[in-house]
Amino acid sequence: MTTLPPEPEQIPTPPPSSYQRVKAAYDRMAEVDRPEVWITLRAMEDVLVDAKAVDERLRTGADLPLAGTLLAVADAIDVASLPTAGEDVCCSEASVVSRLTAAGAVLVGKTNCDRYGCDLEGTHSPYGPVGAALNTSKVSGSASSGAAVAVALGMVDLAVGTDSSGAGRVPASLNGIVGMKPTLGLVPQTGVGSCGSVALFARSLTLGQRALGLMTGPDGIDPLAREWPADVRLGAGDRPRVAIPGSESLTALSLPSRAAFVGAVSALRASGALVETVEVSALLSVGDLIHDDGFTADRHRVAEAGMLALRLLSGYDALVLPTVTDHPQVEEALSDPDGVDRRLETFTAFVNLLDLAAVTVPASPSDLGPFGVSVVVRPFDDQVAIDLAAVLTDEQADFPYPAPGADLVVFGAHLRGQPLNERLVAAGARFTGMVQTGEGYRMLLLPTEPPQPGVVPVRAGGERTMLSGELWRLSPAALGAFAAALPAPFVLGRITLENGENPLAVLCDQAATATATALTGYQCWRAYQRFVSTAGPRDLGRPA
Amino acid sequence: MTTLPPEPEQIPTPPPSSYQRVKAAYDRMAEVDRPEVWITLRAMEDVLVDAKAVDERLRTGADLPLAGTLLAVADAIDVASLPTAGEDVCCSEASVVSRLTAAGAVLVGKTNCDRYGCDLEGTHSPYGPVGAALNTSKVSGSASSGAAVAVALGMVDLAVGTDSSGAGRVPASLNGIVGMKPTLGLVPQTGVGSCGSVALFARSLTLGQRALGLMTGPDGIDPLAREWPADVRLGAGDRPRVAIPGSESLTALSLPSRAAFVGAVSALRASGALVETVEVSALLSVGDLIHDDGFTADRHRVAEAGMLALRLLSGYDALVLPTVTDHPQVEEALSDPDGVDRRLETFTAFVNLLDLAAVTVPASPSDLGPFGVSVVVRPFDDQVAIDLAAVLTDEQADFPYPAPGADLVVFGAHLRGQPLNERLVAAGARFTGMVQTGEGYRMLLLPTEPPQPGVVPVRAGGERTMLSGELWRLSPAALGAFAAALPAPFVLGRITLENGENPLAVLCDQAATATATALTGYQCWRAYQRFVSTAGPRDLGRPA
Repeated sequence: MTTLPPEPEQIPTPPPSSYQRVKAAYDRMAEVDRPEVWITLRAMEDVLVDAKAVDERLRTGADLPLAGTLLAVADAIDVASLPTAGEDVCCSEASVVSRLTAAGAVLVGKTNCDRYGCDLEGTHSPYGPVGAALNTSKVSGSASSGAAVAVALGMVDLAVGTDSSGAGRVPASLNGIVGMKPTLGLVPQTGVGSCGSVALFARSLTLGQRALGLMTGPDGIDPLAREWPADVRLGAGDRPRVAIPGSESLTALSLPSRAAFVGAVSALRASGALVETVEVSALLSVGDLIHDDGFTADRHRVAEAGMLALRLLSGYDALVLPTVTDHPQVEEALSDPDGVDRRLETFTAFVNLLDLAAVTVPASPSDLGPFGVSVVVRPFDDQVAIDLAAVLTDEQADFPYPAPGADLVVFGAHLRGQPLNERLVAAGARFTGMVQTGEGYRMLLLPTEPPQPGVVPVRAGGERTMLSGELWRLSPAALGAFAAALPAPFVLGRITLENGENPLAVLCDQAATATATALTGYQCWRAYQRFVSTAGPRDLGRPA
Repeated sequence: MTTLPPEPEQIPTPPPSSYQRVKAAYDRMAEVDRPEVWITLRAMEDVLVDAKAVDERLRTGADLPLAGTLLAVADAIDVASLPTAGEDVCCSEASVVSRLTAAGAVLVGKTNCDRYGCDLEGTHSPYGPVGAALNTSKVSGSASSGAAVAVALGMVDLAVGTDSSGAGRVPASLNGIVGMKPTLGLVPQTGVGSCGSVALFARSLTLGQRALGLMTGPDGIDPLAREWPADVRLGAGDRPRVAIPGSESLTALSLPSRAAFVGAVSALRASGALVETVEVSALLSVGDLIHDDGFTADRHRVAEAGMLALRLLSGYDALVLPTVTDHPQVEEALSDPDGVDRRLETFTAFVNLLDLAAVTVPASPSDLGPFGVSVVVRPFDDQVAIDLAAVLTDEQADFPYPAPGADLVVFGAHLRGQPLNERLVAAGARFTGMVQTGEGYRMLLLPTEPPQPGVVPVRAGGERTMLSGELWRLSPAALGAFAAALPAPFVLGRITLENGENPLAVLCDQAATATATALTGYQCWRAYQRFVSTAGPRDLGRPA
């Protein structure tokens, strides 16, 4: 047998290869000239070898969601074959680092971080202080200082640091980038060192979410790693409820910072969020437990504070706060480290103590220095925080975390804006797009109150339509609760979509068709409703 | 209008009233003459007032699942209007006590308990030692000594104590009664004091389960209270996997005790359990952490031990152990309290540290003193423990905890013993009984592999049958996962049962009926299968 050579494919202009991106990154490093950011910067030749390997794997069809993403890791985190904190070269590697490089990220080096890994100024490293990305006379903020500055100055796309009382969120805010502090235990701590949980810095929220999705899940080594719960919320919905602090809690902010915060809140309101002011001083004061007891704070005392936080947050999807009060000078941090530390952690220290999660995103108008806004949520509501933060970065968080879930197509009262949609939203379900069925279905008008459509498959010969519906993603528990509450004549069954997929859908028992009016000619419930609102209910089922 | 007087009802011999039960209990107290069991025994007159109130509420139709159940509470636990631990009279009351009395339980008094609330001998009370129920020269075991003896001697039906390293399970075992140590946080600790979590002693496992069902759930006060998770397992299934220790871990047991343990394991095997021997010494040694660090044991060290326990238990539904090694004399406990303490907690101390749950039940043949067997399970698998323990007490745990869940009727491959039944069992679903549909359904033979029946409603005129199926209870997450995995042509929809109820059921899309054979005349899938196995597959669909 002879094998024909493959046809040359039509290739659109390709994105830069990993190889090209590494070269550009090292050019950028030379340009910005900030050597104090790095403790171990790998030789470009070594990084290029990794990059070429990624390009090669991609060519052979490997699924590498982070292909060519340039990665930095705070020095406290183990990387195989590189030293950790000035000690010998590691032979093991943090699970998060292995997971990111397995997905195609290319590690550039290890970044400078404060000595104890817990300070917030970024001025206490034996390798020298790291100034802020855009103003080296100001602090860069904390344990993860180098990591944040490396992302902020465009040397890498992604950096992994740590965050106990704010060491991830504070430098993200002070350097004008995205910082994520996921729910404790979602990301395994193996190889991350003892101080603080994993934090992620990213060029964009979308990139950060994609990376976090790959970093989560027990690794079989970290005993405190946690699975997503079966009733995890997969989205914030169209009308999230947001709590914000009253002006009495914002007095430490400069007027321009306060204005920036108000602007961020207005953007949330404009996007559909219901915003209310709450009294947060008791919540913020929980952060003082760290100073009183350290991280071994009495379990019961912390739990009581947590109860208070949960009560405060009950009825809200998130609490939105400024990330820091102000941007201290390096000089001040060197002369009064404790004072600056406590000031910087005002809005961040309570979060880990109370097992909450947070995302900080830049929210400053162009005439102000970096200023971040934090979205704080209950544990495992990480996607809710990302959805709200995405409003402020003007991004579309179009897929949820890879948490457990199932797809469901709805056609009637559960559509967005329809009377029963709230049941999906309240269960944490996430709208993921419009879908079109294949041919072979029809829609009936059921004699329910309120009127609802019933979708049934049509046997050979009947009038067949392609129907439009909405695809939602539900946690297993949300789908179970939805099924348990589904009244007759509705059923859950498989539907065939135009694209050949077979998700679960809300269909109608055929037995109900006898007493129902066929909605012939309508491709979706909304079109029928528009018709009714124009023509009046008498014309039910008789399209123009 | 005139109102006719109601017809006199036919009343069957009624159970004893609460009033009568209280009188009988005080007679019993006089008979056994064990005043050291009580620290505060309420005056019979006061208790009778409460009992009469319960009888009256019952007469007026109140739903009181514990009506007339006599209750004792360990002295460390707060009861309104009674003193706690020799201090002033309380004005607040433990949530568990309020919940039990609200359900009709009648509080008789507060029982003796060890001074620090944590010892295991029951010989360190300022009110004097409490000897075992049946042999006062032997120890009664621990903080909850009086509570256990009060139940064991029939003075009350139910008693609430505490259990940290075994203070609930050890006295239950040494006094021959049921002792339950639920998952930490399921029962709120409000008013229970600082030492150990709530434990329950009960006359029977069924009564204990009913009481625990009423005691669980956050009370809005205890910050460490936990909800049932959305994927809670609701049963052990027909073939639970049980781990037991090898003989090398049982050397401290007397020969008769070892024989009793072997007997209990045989009973589990006979009931369908798959029993395997595992190496438990590392697990048991976790209990030493209490002695090394107390209950503030380093969180990470405990978590690592927990990981080990989870690995050991992975693949098993439960670990079955003897509850205690032996039954020490009071004299020995007085001279060597620490030695006796450590011996008594050999098989119990690791449980709370690792966030496990346990139930101990009497398992001694008549010629041996009291000897208990413990069923230890993962957190929130409390119902699994109860199901296994019920084998040993020969009881039927016929309803699960009031955890979240939904009912589902199955007719075919998901029935017990059928090929897909394992999917229900693995998801923690619980078989709750056989059900019969109303008229108006029929069963089809679907061309699936393996062959499965499809159940469809029949429109007017068609041949209609009442079908038999099985009713299962599933957690929300289990139902969601079941729905997400359901292939066409099956659907989930409402069915009407003979009793008028409308649970969810696995039905079949009507469109599939065109290519399916009607199984006319069969009322259930098993009957059809029996026919096929006799008559051969050629006769498919043609019943004799």
